[in-house]
Amino acid sequence: MRVNGSGNNFGLQSANRTRPKTADASGKGTVKKSFANRFSVFAKAGGDAYLLGTQPKTRSLTENPLYHIIDSDEGPVWESTEGFTVDIKNPKKASKLHGMKTYIAYQITPSNTGIQVSRRYKHFDWLYERLSTKFVTIVVPPLPDKQVTGRYEESFIEKRMDQLKRWLDRMTTHAVVGRCDVFMHFLTCTDEKEWKRGKRDAEKDDFLGAAFFNVISVPNTPLDIAVVERQHENFHKFVKSMDASMAQICQVIHDHGKKHIGPFKREYQKIGKAFTELAGSFELDTRPRINDIDAPTEGSQQLTDAIKFTGRTYDEIGELFAAQPKNDNYRLEDFLREYTGMLSCFPDMINFHKHTISTVRECQKQREEQKMEFDEAESIKGRADVVSYTMMAEINHFQRQRVYDYKMMMKDYLVEQIKFYESVTEKLRIALGQYENVNV
Amino acid sequence: MRVNGSGNNFGLQSANRTRPKTADASGKGTVKKSFANRFSVFAKAGGDAYLLGTQPKTRSLTENPLYHIIDSDEGPVWESTEGFTVDIKNPKKASKLHGMKTYIAYQITPSNTGIQVSRRYKHFDWLYERLSTKFVTIVVPPLPDKQVTGRYEESFIEKRMDQLKRWLDRMTTHAVVGRCDVFMHFLTCTDEKEWKRGKRDAEKDDFLGAAFFNVISVPNTPLDIAVVERQHENFHKFVKSMDASMAQICQVIHDHGKKHIGPFKREYQKIGKAFTELAGSFELDTRPRINDIDAPTEGSQQLTDAIKFTGRTYDEIGELFAAQPKNDNYRLEDFLREYTGMLSCFPDMINFHKHTISTVRECQKQREEQKMEFDEAESIKGRADVVSYTMMAEINHFQRQRVYDYKMMMKDYLVEQIKFYESVTEKLRIALGQYENVNV
Repeated sequence: MRVNGSGNNFGLQSANRTRPKTADASGKGTVKKSFANRFSVFAKAGGDAYLLGTQPKTRSLTENPLYHIIDSDEGPVWESTEGFTVDIKNPKKASKLHGMKTYIAYQITPSNTGIQVSRRYKHFDWLYERLSTKFVTIVVPPLPDKQVTGRYEESFIEKRMDQLKRWLDRMTTHAVVGRCDVFMHFLTCTDEKEWKRGKRDAEKDDFLGAAFFNVISVPNTPLDIAVVERQHENFHKFVKSMDASMAQICQVIHDHGKKHIGPFKREYQKIGKAFTELAGSFELDTRPRINDIDAPTEGSQQLTDAIKFTGRTYDEIGELFAAQPKNDNYRLEDFLREYTGMLSCFPDMINFHKHTISTVRECQKQREEQKMEFDEAESIKGRADVVSYTMMAEINHFQRQRVYDYKMMMKDYLVEQIKFYESVTEKLRIALGQYENVNV
Repeated sequence: MRVNGSGNNFGLQSANRTRPKTADASGKGTVKKSFANRFSVFAKAGGDAYLLGTQPKTRSLTENPLYHIIDSDEGPVWESTEGFTVDIKNPKKASKLHGMKTYIAYQITPSNTGIQVSRRYKHFDWLYERLSTKFVTIVVPPLPDKQVTGRYEESFIEKRMDQLKRWLDRMTTHAVVGRCDVFMHFLTCTDEKEWKRGKRDAEKDDFLGAAFFNVISVPNTPLDIAVVERQHENFHKFVKSMDASMAQICQVIHDHGKKHIGPFKREYQKIGKAFTELAGSFELDTRPRINDIDAPTEGSQQLTDAIKFTGRTYDEIGELFAAQPKNDNYRLEDFLREYTGMLSCFPDMINFHKHTISTVRECQKQREEQKMEFDEAESIKGRADVVSYTMMAEINHFQRQRVYDYKMMMKDYLVEQIKFYESVTEKLRIALGQYENVNV
């Protein structure tokens, strides 16, 4: 199972960048803090330069748009592309520096190439870094947190792999991210030299941040800035509200899972023990006869056995309680945490868009005061519309995914809950059956 | 509903006698304490005088036996008698001394007379006092405790009436107690003068305590004292063990009921609230259109509704949890407490029988040392056998009842538990159904 991974890090540093944390079980949301404290992503990503048209011209900027937003029945959306899936499996513990350093390598196979590549967590981390720098108004959810201790335990590795798969799935189903060069490089490159070249290319990408808007085509219709503002406010409210609800439900579902494993299990096992001990007392039943002592009657022994069975039943129900969270609560929790991660991308996006809207409003004002030429203002408004259209496409994409994903998840949760209570009922029914044959 | 009950107390004092408490939710048993601290019931009930044949002869003692113990397939038992049942209903709040004193009067109708009588708690208490004085080796379970506060609340009155009915049922199904004069007097007397006469008669009963053994006939076979001793020890062990198990199970079942009403209800309602609030956030969904804002899609609204429904479902499941103990835990608890009360009678009975056995052993010794005549020793042994036969009949009666009652109670408990988990499952199934129609 070991792979000699010497030199296998493709020249990457270990992942140690700070990224927005997903909401944790402390029940605090992430969005509010992000809005308040974050250094304006707008300035950092070159929003001003893009909107005002002062970006340095590069060769690439003259090329045709690569990505298209089209209008649809459900509003502006990314033009859909051929989808593909990824398979991730066989996490292997590998080492380098003659065993001084060990790590886990995941084997990834995209359905569109069928060729397996081997990637470490730090490769994912590098990819995340590139994608989140490149796409300022596209949801690039954070990776699962880097684990410091216990990261070679089998259960952890399985769970981590599952989280990475969810993350990859989220990326591959996105019409833009799933097609971009750096992502394809990550999914397909098998050669170390090629990897380094691709890595260098990605790191000097001309279409990072606001520059990326240059390669997007949008519908011709100019947007009404007042409507854009209202859309913006509505979505902002939605995100804040959803973030708060998610923090709460994560907490409740997490706690409920813990109760299943601890106090609920103990509670039912206490009942089981009480019945078992009662049966133990009933076992001492003897019937006095004339000059003789008789064992318990058949009926008495049958009752004792039935009560013992009932005791075991409640004990087993306790075990069912403890085994249940992995089927429902923890799965729901993982799902909710993934969405919390996705939500954590919106504050930056909303922030960027807010600055875009302000810039348009400022231009309008200057235009009204005749401090700005009509053409210049129109050209700024045109570029701002690209940002707004991107936001619209992202919001529509997110909401569509949300409805689909929550429908599936809620069904899954309820199905598992039903199965659970059915198992409890079935156990009790079998216990009840033990009393049918007690002769009295 | 009020009855003028002036003079209706038939000359009785209020019940305020101390009686052995039933095991309470503190989880402590009653039997051990009773064995250790109680003044010997043997001396008090005239055990010595009876065994040694030094009782004062009364007219009554020359009469024929009234009660018969016969041998059966299941050992010595009381000869069975025509059974009857009692109906108890219409508890009426009545008053006397021009409304200065109020009390509850229960209307009791025995099936063998069909004539209704009206009785207060203190009449029951007087009856209990007479029966427990009269029958030293027969189980006369304590009455439900006298309540000081809240005793006119409807729920309390209903519960008290139910407990009194159980107590009466326990008495009527006993071949001796159900036929004795004082009990029949209690169940049938409707006239105040008659009541007072019956009360006086009962209080100067010649067959109280050990004297009662004079009116019992037993099988001719003399008992083997060594076997009697072993039977005695076995039953003593059984009672101690059952008492301890009962204290534990009462506690566990009581606590479980309280958890249903408190923390379990809150737990499920917390989940309900979390889903409801999530649905509240999802309600804020709006889809950005070109120069327009659209309401959530049909699918989005359907999902929101389904999640709201799920929230209500968990809230209702919380209510189901809170409503459940009255169907199972509290019923089981009442049943267990009744048995704890019955068990509390055994220490005195065992104590009495233990002294009887010692007396026989002492006579044997004196006989061997030729300090006692053969005839005298035989005559003492004959009387001791009546006590032992009575114990045997009582033990066999108790064990037979126990098997029957616990079978019924356990079935009842499990049936209710099954119904409960089925209701939960059914609610979840309906909630699941809400997702079928969510268009994605």
